[in-house]
Amino acid sequence: MEKLYEGKAKIVYKTEEPDKVVIYFKDEATAFNAQKKDIIEGKGILNNKISSIFFNLLEKNGIPTHFIKQLSDREMLAYKTTIIPVEVVVRNLATGSIVKRLGITEKTPFNPPLIEFYLKNDQLGDPIICYEHILALGLATEEDIKKIKELAFKVNQVLKDFLKNIDIILVDFKLEFGKKDDESIVVADEISPDTCRFWDAKSGERMDKDRFRLNLGDLSKYYEEVLRRLEGEKS
Amino acid sequence: MEKLYEGKAKIVYKTEEPDKVVIYFKDEATAFNAQKKDIIEGKGILNNKISSIFFNLLEKNGIPTHFIKQLSDREMLAYKTTIIPVEVVVRNLATGSIVKRLGITEKTPFNPPLIEFYLKNDQLGDPIICYEHILALGLATEEDIKKIKELAFKVNQVLKDFLKNIDIILVDFKLEFGKKDDESIVVADEISPDTCRFWDAKSGERMDKDRFRLNLGDLSKYYEEVLRRLEGEKS
Repeated sequence: MEKLYEGKAKIVYKTEEPDKVVIYFKDEATAFNAQKKDIIEGKGILNNKISSIFFNLLEKNGIPTHFIKQLSDREMLAYKTTIIPVEVVVRNLATGSIVKRLGITEKTPFNPPLIEFYLKNDQLGDPIICYEHILALGLATEEDIKKIKELAFKVNQVLKDFLKNIDIILVDFKLEFGKKDDESIVVADEISPDTCRFWDAKSGERMDKDRFRLNLGDLSKYYEEVLRRLEGEKS
Repeated sequence: MEKLYEGKAKIVYKTEEPDKVVIYFKDEATAFNAQKKDIIEGKGILNNKISSIFFNLLEKNGIPTHFIKQLSDREMLAYKTTIIPVEVVVRNLATGSIVKRLGITEKTPFNPPLIEFYLKNDQLGDPIICYEHILALGLATEEDIKKIKELAFKVNQVLKDFLKNIDIILVDFKLEFGKKDDESIVVADEISPDTCRFWDAKSGERMDKDRFRLNLGDLSKYYEEVLRRLEGEKS
C-alpha cells in the first residue's frame, strides 16, 4: 500500500478507493513534543481497538467521524480527510500543562468544560492559540470553528457518560478534526489512552499516557484494562 | 501620600477623594518579565506626558479612560479602578513574540487587527489565554469581554489614524482595563512607547521599548521624538 503520511504513532495508507484510507497503529510512544520516546509493544493494537469502540460509540450518537471499520489488529479503514491543523482539547478537570501554565489547582473542575485550541505544529511545539489566531492564520472559518466546538462538547458528553458507567473519569482529551471530500467536518485521528486522560473512578489511578509521561510504568496493563472495561460495556 | 500599589514602572497613591488616585511614573525599564532591568532617566516624565496626550485623545473620541488630568511631570490624576487581570494586546503587524511563537513572517499585516489576551501574572510570566480561560478563571464576564474587545478595537482605530498623521506606524500595543466604582469599564494603566510599538513611517526605526529590549540604545531620544510629534499634532 502506498504511504500517504507517517506520524508519530500512526501511518496512513492509500486504498483503491480515493476517498478511503487505511490507518495503521504503531507501537511508538512519544511525549513532550517527542523529546521522550519509546516503543511499547502492543500499544498500537490496543489503541486501534479502543479507538474503534469510541468511534463506533460516537457514530451511534450521531457524531460524524472518519471511522468506517476496524480491519485488523493494527488497521482501521477510515474516510480520507484533510486534517484541520488545530488540536482541540476539552478539559473536565484541571491537570497537566494547564495547572502549571495558569496556576490552577490540580483537579479543579471546569463547568462548563474548558475547550482549548493548539496549533498542530511539532516544530513550534504545538503552541496554544485562540479563536482569533485560527481566523488570522486562516486555519479554519468561523463556521468551521463553531461546528468543531459543538462537536467537541458533544464528544465530551457522550464519552464522559459512557466512561462513567465503567468507572472511568474522563479528565481531558485531544481531538483532531478533518474535512471529508464533501467538505463535511468529522472527528478524525484517534481516541485512545494516548489522547485522553482516564482516571480510575475508585482508585484514582492513571489509565493513560501519563503512565509513560510520568514514568509510572505498566502502560500496557492499564490500556488493556481500559479495553477490557469498554468491551464489557459495549456487549 | 499613601501608597496603594507599586508596579514595575508606576506607583499608585491614594488621594483625599476615595474614587481618585495619583499615578506616579518611574524611570524603571523592565523587559522579558523583568529579567532585564535598567533605569532610564526621564522616561517616567516622557511616558506620563505621552500617556496624558493619548488618554485625552481617546476621551475626545468617546472612549472612556481612567484619566482625569496631568498633575505634574511625573504625576497623573486618575479614577481609581479595579484592574481586570487581563492584558489586552492588539496587533496590526506581526512582530515580537508572536512571530516566533506561531511562525508568522515578520511584518505580516493582520486584517482585521488581531486581539490577544494575556493573564496579568508576573509569576506565571503573563501566559497567553483565550476567551474561554477568562470565563473559566472568572477574570471577567462575557459582557465585560465584549466591551473590552469593542473598546480595544476603537482605541486601535483612533490611535492608528492619529499616529499616521505624524508618520508613526502603530504596530501593536497592550491595554489594561479597569472597573470604576460605578462598575463601568475604562481604559486604564498607561499608553506610551513602553506599551506600544511605534515605527517611524519613513525610516522604519523603532521608537518604543524595543530599543531597550533589543539593546538599540537612544531610548529617551526616540521617546522625546514621539512626544515632540504628538505635541506638534495636538496643537
